[in-house]
Amino acid sequence: MSKEAAPQGSRRRILTAQQDDFPGWYQDVVAKSELAENGPVRGTMVIRPYGYSLWERLQEELDRRIKATGARNAYFPLLIPQSYLHREAQHVEGFSPELAVVTHGGGKRLEEPVVIRPTSETIINACFARWIHSYRDLPLLINQWANVVRWELRPRLFLRTTEFLWQEGHTAHATEADAHDYALRILADVYQDTMENVLAIPVLTGQKTDSERFAGAVTTWTCEAMMRDGKALQMGTSHELGQNFARAFDITYSDAAGTLCHAWQTSWGASTRLIGALVMAHGDDAGLRIPPQLAPVQAVVILIGGDGDTGARAEAITNDLRRAGVRAELDGRTGIAFGRRSIEWELKGVPVRLELGPRELDDGQITLVERHSSRKSTTPLTSVVESVRHALTLAQRCLFDEARMRMQERTVLAADLETALEAAQHGFAQLPVNALGQIGEEWLNARGVSVRCLTQDETGARQAVIARAY
Amino acid sequence: MSKEAAPQGSRRRILTAQQDDFPGWYQDVVAKSELAENGPVRGTMVIRPYGYSLWERLQEELDRRIKATGARNAYFPLLIPQSYLHREAQHVEGFSPELAVVTHGGGKRLEEPVVIRPTSETIINACFARWIHSYRDLPLLINQWANVVRWELRPRLFLRTTEFLWQEGHTAHATEADAHDYALRILADVYQDTMENVLAIPVLTGQKTDSERFAGAVTTWTCEAMMRDGKALQMGTSHELGQNFARAFDITYSDAAGTLCHAWQTSWGASTRLIGALVMAHGDDAGLRIPPQLAPVQAVVILIGGDGDTGARAEAITNDLRRAGVRAELDGRTGIAFGRRSIEWELKGVPVRLELGPRELDDGQITLVERHSSRKSTTPLTSVVESVRHALTLAQRCLFDEARMRMQERTVLAADLETALEAAQHGFAQLPVNALGQIGEEWLNARGVSVRCLTQDETGARQAVIARAY
Repeated sequence: MSKEAAPQGSRRRILTAQQDDFPGWYQDVVAKSELAENGPVRGTMVIRPYGYSLWERLQEELDRRIKATGARNAYFPLLIPQSYLHREAQHVEGFSPELAVVTHGGGKRLEEPVVIRPTSETIINACFARWIHSYRDLPLLINQWANVVRWELRPRLFLRTTEFLWQEGHTAHATEADAHDYALRILADVYQDTMENVLAIPVLTGQKTDSERFAGAVTTWTCEAMMRDGKALQMGTSHELGQNFARAFDITYSDAAGTLCHAWQTSWGASTRLIGALVMAHGDDAGLRIPPQLAPVQAVVILIGGDGDTGARAEAITNDLRRAGVRAELDGRTGIAFGRRSIEWELKGVPVRLELGPRELDDGQITLVERHSSRKSTTPLTSVVESVRHALTLAQRCLFDEARMRMQERTVLAADLETALEAAQHGFAQLPVNALGQIGEEWLNARGVSVRCLTQDETGARQAVIARAY
Repeated sequence: MSKEAAPQGSRRRILTAQQDDFPGWYQDVVAKSELAENGPVRGTMVIRPYGYSLWERLQEELDRRIKATGARNAYFPLLIPQSYLHREAQHVEGFSPELAVVTHGGGKRLEEPVVIRPTSETIINACFARWIHSYRDLPLLINQWANVVRWELRPRLFLRTTEFLWQEGHTAHATEADAHDYALRILADVYQDTMENVLAIPVLTGQKTDSERFAGAVTTWTCEAMMRDGKALQMGTSHELGQNFARAFDITYSDAAGTLCHAWQTSWGASTRLIGALVMAHGDDAGLRIPPQLAPVQAVVILIGGDGDTGARAEAITNDLRRAGVRAELDGRTGIAFGRRSIEWELKGVPVRLELGPRELDDGQITLVERHSSRKSTTPLTSVVESVRHALTLAQRCLFDEARMRMQERTVLAADLETALEAAQHGFAQLPVNALGQIGEEWLNARGVSVRCLTQDETGARQAVIARAY
């Protein structure tokens, strides 16, 4: 009953082929699937409705998991006095080169220039200092959905933009152990879970090296994924801040015995960069492939010409799917050629396409096309909902498995730096930390490769994950 | 079975009385109910978790209605080239005095300074010019949730802040009639509906006068409400832009005959100012009163001491309420005095409080306190869900009716300017437009009073609504 869809000759003309030029393919697919485009100020980005609908779904999934850890959303100002950034020495050193500075407001030169937040540790911790008094106020778990600005010299849509959207969590705890556990809970239960079970992107988790650590953190935990070109993308980070900001901003609490102590803190963020990950982890030469758990449109019913009867049936099927909890849409634009519409939905990566015309109606069958495999099959009109549900479950699993297998196949266990460098041209290398030595990281960096994270293998031995990275 | 709750002597000490000093009361209640506080840069605001949870609920309600009109969310850059604002003459004149200007980015002086968006007409319409080609691309209906910055000299939390959060809609249509109808649909189906049926605040709708019109609009429609001190608050506006921006940004489409035409446009916005409206329309000397449709917590079960049995029962009741679709929370903090917790929930305006201790458990009864009326009653443990639902329905209606009656009682039909001015000291005045004359508006403005909008009475006669305003 199922056959491969005939390869569409026209595809080649729509997108650059991945194999020929992966960055060119990326640029094409982001534009043609109408995800985003460049803004007029260098490095800024317009997120178009389809791109934004992906972000809204991702926000929904992340937000639910963040709230399940006990955190609450709040909102802090965009504009921060420059002096705030100077309170934590490493922090200001890390962010100074990227700042956008407002010097004039309301027609006047400002007495103290203000910066647009590159991240909100400083302004939030100034509040925490006022809000926290006693151990009873801890843990204080705050999350913010916001835009931030970091001046970007080599911008790339979603991956590196001067302004990006993200969530940033900021917490204060009574003990170092509490902060440590919470930072890791965010890493696993919020980030890894969303990335693997919603975005269908397997990730490696581990610690950043000293040189890649967040400016002001004691430990940075990261989720790293492999894109289809073998390069790594940092997907989200969770930081243990120790007492660095607590000391800089004087965040103290009195413990049960009445002693004044500095709080222990975390911060963590994930951004619109994840949309870039989604594109590069699953997309193929025909466009995006969106995993059903994330997809704003999971199934589209494409009406092919026909009369009122066919139209009514297409609408009924769409409604049946919606009632069954499937995010379904009807494409009734019969004035536009079927082929063109088909390519459009393919480009947008909608997991399941249902094609219904008078012929299908006569046969009591509908054509079902799976985006992830391009497999085309027919299914009786009486069991459409069931078939779609099955196809969605399958697509979610297949996309994840495909990405996981790719990562496995393209990860090499290396014993020395030369081998690791060579392997990193095509994928990841795992190198024992001992073999990295004191100068290994610098040596690799000079050759366009970086240590993505430090992990442990099954035996507990420490490994460095090495790759080219976005 | 029901009695008035004893007035709590301690209230006077928590908040300034509304009658003594309404602005002082406002400042107190915003702080004490933990809605928001001032940020370090003048005019900026920190929205605390409880305040933000109100905004999240409001976003949810507005967003659903906006999407029901066919609009889709997108996101446009925060930073706008200064030259963009200059393209529409009235627009730049209106916004120039309020701009925040970024002169340095990434450690360098910028070649062209960029402004932080005070609103996004210019940057969005520059995109529309690229996206719109044919009549088939119309209507184009876009909404954005974003922060904007307008330098504010007399800031006040929620009501006037240098940075605020809002949604801004931007649309393009093929005809003037389409744009007109859509602007009014937003006014009625999105704004008025949310304000009256969710926020429980009755509004007057009408047109702004020429001098109060949005900079660049042809017609500005507004929703105006009366606060508890008799002053007016502008709640949201919907603008017909005519072809002003379409000409400035060259937004053209070819019609069915192939003729090139300029599009007709609308824009519309509602902001965090609505949280200020919520406070001032319903709040009383004991704190906020949140209408159930909006309330993030509709009912709180307050556990009063007791043993494990009482605690288990309180938890079971909370779960029963949640299963029945009530947003319920359990306050099991028996370590904190009951009175203190009670005052806290009252301050936060939670519509229904349920009090459960060992005595109530023995009696098979629970104490139910309605926030809107302060009425206290007992209800059998077997019918808690039903009683809570009834109380919530009642609270929503009563808050709206109370606000509507206040507006009716405090609106005076005036025949001349002097009478209108006098009436506006205590509430609204309705003055025939003829009586306003050519110089009436200026005369009123000089006396601290403004024309809020122009409406029509039942006979079709045009009336000016006159009031002091926030």
